[in-house]
Amino acid sequence: MDTALLIDEVRLTPILIADPPLLNTQGVHQPYTPRLVVEVVTRGGVTGVGETYGDGKYLRLARPLAEALPGRSVSDVNGLFALADEVCGDARDADERAARVDAGGLRGVQTTDKLRLSVVSGFEVACLDALGRTLGLPVHALLGGKVRDRVEYSAYLFYRWAGHPDGAEKDDWGAALDPAGIVAQARRFARDHGFSSFKLKGGVFEPDQEIAAIRALAEAFPGQPLRLDPNGAWSVPTSLYVAGQLADVLEYLEDPASGTDLMAEVSAGTSVPLATNMCVTTVPEIADAFARDAVQVVLSDHHYWGGLHRTRELAAVCRAFGVGLSMHSNTHLGISLAAMTHVAATVPNLDYACDSHYPWQTEDVITVRHTFRDGRLDVSDAPGLGVELDRERLAVLHRRWLADDGTMRERDDAAAMRKADPGWTTPPVPRW
Amino acid sequence: MDTALLIDEVRLTPILIADPPLLNTQGVHQPYTPRLVVEVVTRGGVTGVGETYGDGKYLRLARPLAEALPGRSVSDVNGLFALADEVCGDARDADERAARVDAGGLRGVQTTDKLRLSVVSGFEVACLDALGRTLGLPVHALLGGKVRDRVEYSAYLFYRWAGHPDGAEKDDWGAALDPAGIVAQARRFARDHGFSSFKLKGGVFEPDQEIAAIRALAEAFPGQPLRLDPNGAWSVPTSLYVAGQLADVLEYLEDPASGTDLMAEVSAGTSVPLATNMCVTTVPEIADAFARDAVQVVLSDHHYWGGLHRTRELAAVCRAFGVGLSMHSNTHLGISLAAMTHVAATVPNLDYACDSHYPWQTEDVITVRHTFRDGRLDVSDAPGLGVELDRERLAVLHRRWLADDGTMRERDDAAAMRKADPGWTTPPVPRW
Repeated sequence: MDTALLIDEVRLTPILIADPPLLNTQGVHQPYTPRLVVEVVTRGGVTGVGETYGDGKYLRLARPLAEALPGRSVSDVNGLFALADEVCGDARDADERAARVDAGGLRGVQTTDKLRLSVVSGFEVACLDALGRTLGLPVHALLGGKVRDRVEYSAYLFYRWAGHPDGAEKDDWGAALDPAGIVAQARRFARDHGFSSFKLKGGVFEPDQEIAAIRALAEAFPGQPLRLDPNGAWSVPTSLYVAGQLADVLEYLEDPASGTDLMAEVSAGTSVPLATNMCVTTVPEIADAFARDAVQVVLSDHHYWGGLHRTRELAAVCRAFGVGLSMHSNTHLGISLAAMTHVAATVPNLDYACDSHYPWQTEDVITVRHTFRDGRLDVSDAPGLGVELDRERLAVLHRRWLADDGTMRERDDAAAMRKADPGWTTPPVPRW
Repeated sequence: MDTALLIDEVRLTPILIADPPLLNTQGVHQPYTPRLVVEVVTRGGVTGVGETYGDGKYLRLARPLAEALPGRSVSDVNGLFALADEVCGDARDADERAARVDAGGLRGVQTTDKLRLSVVSGFEVACLDALGRTLGLPVHALLGGKVRDRVEYSAYLFYRWAGHPDGAEKDDWGAALDPAGIVAQARRFARDHGFSSFKLKGGVFEPDQEIAAIRALAEAFPGQPLRLDPNGAWSVPTSLYVAGQLADVLEYLEDPASGTDLMAEVSAGTSVPLATNMCVTTVPEIADAFARDAVQVVLSDHHYWGGLHRTRELAAVCRAFGVGLSMHSNTHLGISLAAMTHVAATVPNLDYACDSHYPWQTEDVITVRHTFRDGRLDVSDAPGLGVELDRERLAVLHRRWLADDGTMRERDDAAAMRKADPGWTTPPVPRW
C-alpha cells in the first residue's frame, strides 16, 4: 500500500457557529451551535476535512479515535467502525450514564452506538477527502461515480424570531410566526436560491396554525412539493387530522408522531407518505419499521448512519424494500453539505429533494461558500470534496468555542428558550 | 477528471474452459463451459480484466455495452447500470423470446434484467481492476478497504463420473457416486487446500443416499460445517424429511425446494437454516423472502447481483434484516475468484465460508493460480485485482471457442447428460 496514504496526524477543532433563532417543538436554536471539524493529514502531506456534531458527548468519542488513526491508511474507511468500537468507549459522561438513555431529542433515540457512528462519519469524510485529493478523484468517484450532475435541495422553512433574546448575531430575516411570515420566508428562499420545494419545521404552534401555514404555501406556490415536520410532537389522532387536512398538498408528512409504533398507526390511517429521520435512524430500527409500513420515506443523514458508504447502503436497503429516500439535515457547514452532495449524486434512488439548513448558516469554514442554483448544487469534480478549509475562520470560530463558558458547547434548545421564557420546559410528547 | 482513466478500448474474448463431469439435478457439466473475459483498456494504457458468463445470451448483451464504453471513466461504475439498460436491449434470441421466461435452471429465474446484471458485473470488475492499477490501490481499497486479511472458502463436493462420456479432459479424481467416494473427495480437498467446511451438490440421487453421504462426512470430519444443496429438487415434505435427518450436522441446507413459497414452508418446519442462491437472486426478490423468513442465509454472487458494489449493498440489506451472508459460485476462473475475495474481504457480515468451484478448474487465464492455504485465500494488496492475464492461454481457450461447432458455447447440463443417457430429459421440479 502506498505509504503516502498513511495517516500522519489528526486534528480536531471544536467550533461554535452562529445559528439564527429557529423554533422547533423543543425550543429554539441557541445563538451558537457546536460543530467539530476533523482534519486528517497524510504522510503524503495531503489534508482531508470532515465535519460532525460538536457537543461534548461527540468530542469524548472523537478524541480517542483521532489518537488511534495515525499509521492507518485513509483508504481504510470500512475499518473505522471496528476501530471506533474498540477505542471509543462510552461517550456519555457520568451524569448521562446515570440517567436513562435519552429517548427524546430531535434526532430520535440517542444511544452510544449512534453517537459513535456520527463521530465516525466525520472521520470517514475526512479520509475520503484526503484519498480523493491524493488520487486526483472527486469523492463521488470513490463511491462508484455520480449518476447525476446536480443535486436538488429543498427550502427549509422555520418559524423564527427576529433575533435572539440577547441580541446576538442579528440578521435581516425578521420574525416568521404566522402563515404570512412563512410565505415571505419561502419567497426569499425561492428568489435567492431557486428552491422549488418547501419544508416547514412544525410542532411549534397549534396544529391548525401550521395547517394554515402549509395552506398559505400551497396557495403561494401552487403544485410545488410541500412538507411539514413537527418532530414527533403529535398524537396519532392529531397526526391523522393534519394528514387529512393537507392530503392534497403534502409531498410527505415527516415524523408526525414519535416512534415506530405510533408512526405505523398514523401510516395505516392516511395515504400521505410518512417520512422519518427519528424512528429509523439506525440499522437495527429498519426491519421493524419497514415490516410494519410505518414509513414510506427515510431521510438519511450521513452523520447518523456512519458516513457516505453507509448512506449508500441505506439507500440500497430502501431500494430493495420500495421505501423512498431523501436526506435530512441538521445545522451544518459547507464541508458536510459537500459530503451530502457527493453521496447524493451517487445514489440512483434519491426520490426527493434533500433538506439542508445551510442557507441559514451565515458562517462557514470553507473559502468559497456553496451556491444553490435553481435549488440545486453542482456536483464537484474537483479532487476530494472540492472545498478548501479557511483556516483563519476556523481559528476564529475555535476561539469562540474556547471562550465560551460552556453554555453554548452543548446544544440545548430548551435552555435557549428559557432565555425568553424562564418557565419553559421541554414539552411532553405528544405535545398536541 | 483525469483523462488517463477514460476508456479507450474494450475487448471481449469468449472462451471455453475444461470442466469435469460434475453431476447436478439437471444433468452433468459439459467437458467445456463458456466464459467471457472482459478487458477494459484506458487512455493511460492500463488494462483491467473482468470475467462473467459466456453463453450467447450474455455475449449478445455484452457487445453493445462494450461498444458504448469508450470515452467513459473507469471510475464511473455506478453509471454502468443505466448505460446497460439503455444500450443492451433484450439478450434472448428469437426462440427464447418466443418461449416463456426460463423459470428453471440452476440460477433461479432468468430474466433479461438478471442477465444484464451478470454482464455488467464483468465490466464493473474490469473497470475497478483498471482503476486500482492506475491508482496503485487494490480493489478492496476501492470498496472502502478490507476488514479481514484472508477469506475462507468451503470445499465444493460433487457426485461425478471418472470422465466425460467422450473421454475429453480426463483427470485423476475418479468417480464419486456414493458416500465413500464423497468422503474420499472431501479428504483430498482438505489435504490439498485445507478446507474445513464442506458442501455437497445434491439433488442427484435419492435423498436417502445423499443423507448417507452427509452422515459419512459428519463421521469423517466430526464437528466441521457441512452443507447440502439439491438445487430446489425436493418437495416440501422431502425437504423437511432431509432437514430432520440431518439437523444435528448441517450448517445450512441450500435451496431444498424451489422458489420462495416452498422455501417459506420448509423454513417454517425446520430449525436448520436455509440458504439460497435460487429464490433470492435479484433485488426485487428480497423483500418477500425476508418478510416470510423463507431464507436465513443469502449466497451472494457478484455476477448475479451486478458487481462488487452491488454485492456490498446486498450484504448491507442482509445485515439490516438479520439474514446471514455467504457467497455462491458457479464454474469460474481466477479473475472472478480474485473479485470475490476482494469484495468478501470488505464485508463485515461474511457469516460463512464462501463457495468456489475453482479447485475443479484445471485451466485458467491468469499467470499465477490462486492457492488456498488452510482453506483460505490471502487478500491481495497489489494494485487492482492482483492477477495478471495470461494472453497465450486466453488465445488458446478462445481458439477452442472459435473451433467449437456450437454445442459447448451454451451451457446445457441436460444435453451433456444425454451423451451418456440418450433418454435423459431435465427432471421435473420437485424431482423427489
